[in-house]
Order: sequence, then structure tokens, then C-alpha cells
Amino acid sequence: MTDHLEPLLLGEGDYGLATDLYQITMMASYRARADLSPQATSTFELFVRRLPKGRAFLVAAGLEQSLAYLRDLRFSDEDVAYLKGLSVFGSTDPAFFEWLRAFRFEGDVDAIPEGTLVLPNEPLVRIHAPLAQAQLVETFLLATINAQTLIASKAARVRMASQGRTFVDFGARRAHGFAAAMLATRAAWIAGADGTSNVVAAKKLGIPVLGTAAHAFIMSFEREQDAFRAYHEGYPDHCVLLIDTYDTHEGCRRATAIGPSLKGVRLDSGDLGQLAKDCRAILDGAGLTATRIVASGDLNEDKITALLADGAPIDSFGVGTELVTSRDQPALGGVYKLVERADGDTRIPVMKLAEGKITWPGPKQVWRHHDADGTWSHDVIELADAPAPADGVPLLRPVMRGGALLPEAFDSLDAMRARCAEGLRTLPNGLRALHDYAEPPVRIGPALAAMAEELKGTLT
Amino acid sequence: MTDHLEPLLLGEGDYGLATDLYQITMMASYRARADLSPQATSTFELFVRRLPKGRAFLVAAGLEQSLAYLRDLRFSDEDVAYLKGLSVFGSTDPAFFEWLRAFRFEGDVDAIPEGTLVLPNEPLVRIHAPLAQAQLVETFLLATINAQTLIASKAARVRMASQGRTFVDFGARRAHGFAAAMLATRAAWIAGADGTSNVVAAKKLGIPVLGTAAHAFIMSFEREQDAFRAYHEGYPDHCVLLIDTYDTHEGCRRATAIGPSLKGVRLDSGDLGQLAKDCRAILDGAGLTATRIVASGDLNEDKITALLADGAPIDSFGVGTELVTSRDQPALGGVYKLVERADGDTRIPVMKLAEGKITWPGPKQVWRHHDADGTWSHDVIELADAPAPADGVPLLRPVMRGGALLPEAFDSLDAMRARCAEGLRTLPNGLRALHDYAEPPVRIGPALAAMAEELKGTLT
Repeated sequence: MTDHLEPLLLGEGDYGLATDLYQITMMASYRARADLSPQATSTFELFVRRLPKGRAFLVAAGLEQSLAYLRDLRFSDEDVAYLKGLSVFGSTDPAFFEWLRAFRFEGDVDAIPEGTLVLPNEPLVRIHAPLAQAQLVETFLLATINAQTLIASKAARVRMASQGRTFVDFGARRAHGFAAAMLATRAAWIAGADGTSNVVAAKKLGIPVLGTAAHAFIMSFEREQDAFRAYHEGYPDHCVLLIDTYDTHEGCRRATAIGPSLKGVRLDSGDLGQLAKDCRAILDGAGLTATRIVASGDLNEDKITALLADGAPIDSFGVGTELVTSRDQPALGGVYKLVERADGDTRIPVMKLAEGKITWPGPKQVWRHHDADGTWSHDVIELADAPAPADGVPLLRPVMRGGALLPEAFDSLDAMRARCAEGLRTLPNGLRALHDYAEPPVRIGPALAAMAEELKGTLT
Repeated sequence: MTDHLEPLLLGEGDYGLATDLYQITMMASYRARADLSPQATSTFELFVRRLPKGRAFLVAAGLEQSLAYLRDLRFSDEDVAYLKGLSVFGSTDPAFFEWLRAFRFEGDVDAIPEGTLVLPNEPLVRIHAPLAQAQLVETFLLATINAQTLIASKAARVRMASQGRTFVDFGARRAHGFAAAMLATRAAWIAGADGTSNVVAAKKLGIPVLGTAAHAFIMSFEREQDAFRAYHEGYPDHCVLLIDTYDTHEGCRRATAIGPSLKGVRLDSGDLGQLAKDCRAILDGAGLTATRIVASGDLNEDKITALLADGAPIDSFGVGTELVTSRDQPALGGVYKLVERADGDTRIPVMKLAEGKITWPGPKQVWRHHDADGTWSHDVIELADAPAPADGVPLLRPVMRGGALLPEAFDSLDAMRARCAEGLRTLPNGLRALHDYAEPPVRIGPALAAMAEELKGTLT
């Protein structure tokens, strides 16, 4: 028995230990090495080797929370005391723990801005830092970028399927905990959601928050029409009524009694397509041509596509579970790999060759190319210090130098959202389909290919 | 452009707005109603209607974080100012916002303790409170219980598949953000994981933390044997070496040079079953019969079952992505439904009948029955105030009264873990298989059945 309830929340004061244990054991080893000077740096890149099935591209997201972590990462006295008490550190130099107390992330970070559409093997984040620092941060960066990129990529599909209709994140109750819901809300917004039902996420992000009422509200009245009247009295200018608690058609007819200030009706069950058509007719018949129809209930990009293809007159989609868990592909396999070691002027590119797992060597840049009409044509992954290819736009930009944030680190959600919208607008036709899309148009640049050839010779 | 990085973390100070907007609009409506006395209470139950495919049962988890939320739930001045500024509340009585500032959850909570194996339609949590209070907390309770129950239920399958072997949570980097990773670590521990790689979760929960080294560590040395020697020097009593960076067989032979203090070798790629057999032979040949073999790399319950069935001499499994995202079933459809309204002595049971969505009426208890040999035979869901069936053990117990925590609320992780282990030990044979298991053995008690019959008559 205990007298404490552990809320198990992650705070900024927890960043030091927000990692896998092996990152800290490796860090202690690196620090203790005679063969590494304190100037020895390393470059790691975070990327996705292969697109999950059902994704023609990904939408980069999670950088802002990653940078906040790198900036605020500290080991508290309590953290250090905890580590000291672990038996694995029984033989570790006590100076290591002193060093942890003074630990700061002092590296350089380059990254692809959030909202950018990205392809396999493109580094989303590149970290250049003393080896021990670069190693420690792997777990948190992966968790943060994997999660938001996963949801933003799913949300972009819902955005495309919804065409010009409104699409709102309704998923808080089904996310992997409420903290995950907040990240999902942010990622969905970047990829084009029109709002969320999640109040605290909306407040922190400064984005629209939306909601109507639940079946329990309707059922708390003796009669449906009393519930409708009460809701309208409370929210005369925002009256959207849930009409499927008893009989949807009857509910719709009852809702029309509200008159022209009825902003919308919501359908949450049954054959949404047919019900939307029937309700549209009922509303129009009552002269309520401006009243909108909102639909929700296990929706995803495929169901929305089918509804719209069938002419369902739905104006707004509430999307929950499928969006916030990326249900068809609930994990993104982003990895964080060493691509170069360096000690002073000595730079050693690192390459890994394993079955189906290639890590391209050296610090890299991604160049995006467009056709004359502005359509995204292809990307080239090239060594960062190779000459810029003609007509390419570099995607990675510097966001941190020596641990200090650069102006580019302070990106706005509006900019991220515009970036994603522009990416979707300029998608090549081959990547536009939700299924049966083309292979990702990404190539390896000549300098990178030559380096890889050379290194393969030494590895085999 | 902005000058702020939003870490987007969930703190205890955020609990007030950690909900869907419609809960707050409904709350304001309830409060404003002339037909509801302040004594009017409601009972809601949180349950899962149907088991996800691939789950013969669920493992209840997430109650502790739910209770911490109910205890600490407040609206700050900042929260209230934010809500006041939303246009939807433009017509809302200003007294509502004053009322929010004084808001406390004052309800009664009964719940099935964490670690208990549960079945469809069994209330995991029952909330009896003034309607406005009970409504507000829906979203957070669902997010919290859905998430941890999801992961604990997956982890129980991994626990069963791993038989007596060690199984460790390695999933932080692939969870839906680091905060979700912490919840996954807790849920996996309750269901029988032997430890985690997640340091801050281990610290907060007081559970074992484990780890070895990554490929980047090995690759930071010129030669693999130098990396092995350095790791052993740093961690002489905890030396587990990752041996698959270059050639696994050669790596294993090199690792034997460490001698008897080599605690283990880890395999993270390739044909884990064959490599484990080969490495066992190499280790045994060098006299290192006590050195353990750890395997990791996209493992799940099915792969572990196949490896062990094939006689793979693996002593410990590291399980990541599949565990922390419950990859085959990444969402749990827990719902929170009104089952009774009451004003003073007037109690009105509420039932919902919709296609495939029945809500059984009235506050309920679950009675668990065992065979003479201690095997779990079946459960009976019955009205809470009906006579106790002979030989049944009630699963729901009181944890909060009038907003105050009861001693039963302070459950320990050890107790939860023992409860789950006991549940798995006494599983009926029909629920023991990972696939092709029996239907859930859960029945409706006579008093509940009679009430439902009566209500159906009034609904149809």
C-alpha cells in the first residue's frame, strides 16, 4: 500500500531522464574514453527508411517540441541521485555525475521545417554534437518526431479526402493518453484540420476549438425537443444539434423548429450518406438551406472519400480514433543513425549496410525540384557540402548552433500549415491517390553515390 | 514568427481544460437548468462493448492516473479567462465562470482494480456525481483508461508468449510521444513485463530499468573488440554486448574474450532463432554457459511464440514498437455512458438501444466466479443493488466518496501486477490461446436482465 497517487506526467524537469538507459551508459563510456578528445563530434541523422504501406509521403512534424527539449534538457540533483543509485553505475567514475549536473546540449541542429512533405531516407533532423550529447537525445527526438509525423501524415490523407469540407479532430478520448492527444491535435492542425474538440490543446496552440453536445445531454431531458430548445437557449449563435439519439429523421424534423439560427445538425451513427441526404431534404424543406450537416463516427479518409463520391451532402467531418492513432499504420519507424565521426579536421563518414537497412554516409542536404508549372517533381539527397544542384531548393535549414536557437527555430503554426497546404497543392499526380500511388520520387545525388560506392568497397 | 517554443506538455494545472469542448458547453447547460436540482445526480459507467479482434480478455489499467486527475481537477483563472473569451460562451451566464473557479469533483467512484482481467460490458469505472461533474470528466477518463488498458492487454499476450523468459519494454522511441511511452511502460509492468529501458518511467514507478548499448556505440570504435572491451571496463558486472553490428557469429566469438563476467549478448537483426542457436553453441563452447542471450527487433507475441516453439535458446526478449503501440489493435473503444439519472430518491435507469450498441441500464457490479480448482469460470454483470450471487467475488470496489479518496484508491503496482499474474494463472483453457480463443464467459444477471426487458418495452 502507498499513500501517493502517481499522475505519471512528463514535465520539463523530467527531460534529463526521458531517454533509454543505454543512452546514459553509452554516454558515460564515451566520456571516459582516452581515444576521444572532448572536441570529438559526431553527426546523427533522423530519417525514415521506408514509407509505411498506405503513405505516398510523410508530413514532417514534431520539431518545435524537439527543440524545446534540446534547449531545456538538464539533469537535476534528484535525477543524478537516482542514476548513482543504480547498480549498473556501480563502477562509474563519480566525476561523470558531476559532469551530468552541468550537462547542456551544445550541438548544431539542422532540420526540415514542420509541415514539409518528405520522403524515405531524407534526414528530417541532423544533429552535430559531441558524441555523448548526440547519443543521449536519440530516444526523445525519435519519440517526438515519430509520433507527430505519424499523425500529420495520416491527417494529410484525411485533409485530401475531405476536399473543401471542414474536418475537425475529435480524437482525444482514443489517443494513447491525453498527452498524446495534444500532440495529435497539433499534428492534425499542421496537416490541415480545421479545428479540434480538445480544449487545452486548442488553448496552448491558439487554434479553433469546436464542439456540440453528446447523447448523454439529449438523454438527460425527458423529451428530445426539450434538449434541443435548452441547447439553443444556451448557445443561440452556435447551435449545432445532435439528432441521432432516438430516430434521426424525427430528430432532424424536431431540430428544424429552432428556425434559421440552427447552425447545424450532427449525425453520429447509421448510414451517414443516406441520412445526410434525407436530412438535407428535411432542412431545405423547412427553408434552412444554410444549416450545415456534421458527420462523425469512426470516420477515416476512405469512408470520407466514399461518402463524398456518393454525393453525401456533408459539410463537416469529425474524425477521431482513426486520426489520432493513425489506426491503419499506428507506428512510424523513424531511426537516428550515426553518419559521420569527426575529431578536429578528421572527418570519417560512417555507412551501415545490412539486409534491407542501408544508412547513407555523411551529413546530407535534401534538394527539392519542381516542374515549370510549380508541381513537385522530385527530391535529391546529396552530401551537405557538395555543390548545390541547379534549380533545387534546400529543405534542411539551420535551427540551432552551439546549443543556441536560431531565428529559424521559431517557426509559426500558420507557416507550418501553409507549407503543408502548399505541398499538397503541388503534389505530383502520382502521389495524389490515397492508394495505388507512385514510388517516392527521391534520388541519390552524385557526390553521395560516389562516397557510398567508395565506402561499400571498404565494408565488403 | 513567434518567440516562444511550446513544449505542449500536459501538467496537473491543465486538468480543467483537458477535455472536449462539448463537455464544458453541456456542463454550463446542466447548471443553468431549472428542471434539475443541485442534488440531481447521474451514474455513468466506463466499459468496452466488444473486445478487439485478437484479444480474449482485457487487463484493466489507468485507474491511478484517473483518480489523481479527479482529485486535482481545477479551473485556474487563466482557464476561465480563456473560456470566457470563446465566442460559443457569448450568451453564457457569467456566474457559470465563477462557479468554474470553485469547481471540485465531488462524486463517488467505484472501480475494478488495475491488473484485473476484464470482459466486454463490464464497467471498469462507475461515476456517481452531479450531472455536470460526471459529464466533464468523460474525455480524460476515457483517454487514460483506454490507453493503459490497451497496452496492458497487449503486454499480457507478450507475457504469456514469453513463458518464463524475461521480457522488457524497449518501446519509448516508437510510442505516441514520450508521455505515452511512460503510460505504456506502466501498463506493461502491470501486465508482467520484467522491466523497461525508459529511465524516467522507471524512476517514477520504482521499477527495474535495463539497457545495453546501441550500434552507434560499437561503430564509434575502430574495431568491434575495442568497443566490447570498453563496455566491459565501464560495466564489469552488467556487461551485455550487442554483437550484430558487423558479423553476428564473429561478434559472438569476439564477445567470448570477455570471459565469465560476460552477462549476455544481444541479437537485434537477422534470423533470431538460428543466430540464438549458433551463439549458444559458441558461448557454451567457450565455457560461458551462464551468459544469457537477449533478442530484440520488431518482436511481438506471435514471433516470440514461434521462436520458442522452434527451440530458440533466447533468455530475454526486448519488445518495443509492437508493445507500446499495440500495433495489431492500436485503439480501444472504451465508452462512458449514462446508466441512471436521479433526483433525490427518484432514480431513473437509462438504457440505450442502437444497432450493435446496447447500454445496459442501472449501476452495476461484476461478480467473478471460479471453479473448485480455482480456475476462472465466468463473470456475471448484475445490478449493483441486487442480491449477491452465491460464490461470486465482486470486482468493483469503492475508491472515492464525495470527492475524497478511500484507502482502496491507494493500490500498489506490486498488487496490480500480482493481480494480473493471478488472473493469467487462473485463465480458463478457452481464453489461454493467443488466437482461436473462446467467446468471453460473461453473463447478464437476472435482475439486470429483468430491468432491461422492462425498459426495452418502453423504448420500442
